[in-house]
Amino acid sequence: MNKNAFRQLSYGVYVVSTWDHGRATGCTANSAMQITSDPATIAVSINHDNYTNSCIQDTGRFALSILGEHSDPGIIGVFGFKSGKDHNKFNEVESAVKSYLPVVADACAYIVCEVIDKMETSSHTVFLGKVVDADVLKKDDPMTYAYYHNVIKGKSPKNAPTYIAEEALTGSADSAQTSAGGAVQPAKYVCSICGYEYDGDTPFEELPEDYVCPICGQPKSVFEKK
Amino acid sequence: MNKNAFRQLSYGVYVVSTWDHGRATGCTANSAMQITSDPATIAVSINHDNYTNSCIQDTGRFALSILGEHSDPGIIGVFGFKSGKDHNKFNEVESAVKSYLPVVADACAYIVCEVIDKMETSSHTVFLGKVVDADVLKKDDPMTYAYYHNVIKGKSPKNAPTYIAEEALTGSADSAQTSAGGAVQPAKYVCSICGYEYDGDTPFEELPEDYVCPICGQPKSVFEKK
Repeated sequence: MNKNAFRQLSYGVYVVSTWDHGRATGCTANSAMQITSDPATIAVSINHDNYTNSCIQDTGRFALSILGEHSDPGIIGVFGFKSGKDHNKFNEVESAVKSYLPVVADACAYIVCEVIDKMETSSHTVFLGKVVDADVLKKDDPMTYAYYHNVIKGKSPKNAPTYIAEEALTGSADSAQTSAGGAVQPAKYVCSICGYEYDGDTPFEELPEDYVCPICGQPKSVFEKK
Repeated sequence: MNKNAFRQLSYGVYVVSTWDHGRATGCTANSAMQITSDPATIAVSINHDNYTNSCIQDTGRFALSILGEHSDPGIIGVFGFKSGKDHNKFNEVESAVKSYLPVVADACAYIVCEVIDKMETSSHTVFLGKVVDADVLKKDDPMTYAYYHNVIKGKSPKNAPTYIAEEALTGSADSAQTSAGGAVQPAKYVCSICGYEYDGDTPFEELPEDYVCPICGQPKSVFEKK
């Protein structure tokens, strides 16, 4: 089995959110899709280890905020690489309340759902939600996972279904440090927390000491030379 | 509820295939996503009215062929706009057999699954498949639904969860026939079967009478002036 095939599946980048006893919480997700058109239903897949999973089980409702290419990529870090159990994620991201559920204000669209069924798997719950509200928030192209990976240069959190350990991938272009002509390429600096690959004009070594990863907000010290 | 929000969800373009008593069959799908990574599982959503649905229920297996941007768009027409009940779709498309299941040879990757669970909805079955085989077939960017819609200018079959009747969409750019300056744009010719919008250099009226829709293969006569 060649797991590189899974990388050919196309996804968007979403924040799935709900309430935790009156406190807004959520997590990033790639796996969301419309299932039926009338009535409209949406399925999302959430890891059992994500705190948001148990909150959706409690409330029976979730909102999907659809991130656009111009949404702040820091949103992905806040919702993807920290736990909502001990972190008030919505304190760091502007929110709005739509049909009684918290959504990300900087998303390009949102969909609010009431859970009507679910399917359990070994690690994830697939929630089936009946859409109770949906709207477009701003004109933007939706962010695809390919855009996040190729342009923003981010990676999947370890709880994501799309997460594949680097060593499981064969022939990954990421591992090539020399060009076809054999010339040595500049070293890459990669955030060890979220996988963001620094690609600024300033050499990484010359960045100020208070530089933080634009995706997950971790300090310069967690970056690793590859 | 603004259904335009659903259009911001990102999808790929796939052919889901299986056997019908020894005869290969399948249908196009947009709704497929990885659910778990270890063991790897994939969920696909198939309309009850698609003949492929009952064939998957019988065989307990399906293959997902992931179309690439350079895959022949005619594949989408063969698998998306004809019924496998009375049409041997794989007679028109080159196939390969992988782990005992038929796949589309011109896809960029394939994933073969054994059904381990399913969730029924009013119109679709969500099949959960454990991956038994997967591989990359050729180097290509996977085709997204946005690429199919914006570049190839195709639309969803009516059985797709992503299908939205044009009249349900508000403010659709597709409906504008005059530019902001008020200049009249050339008439559009749209295939009434699959929604493909002709965009060739030759004026539509001057195309030969044996012209057929490149997506669904229907004759010039089914095109409508918009």
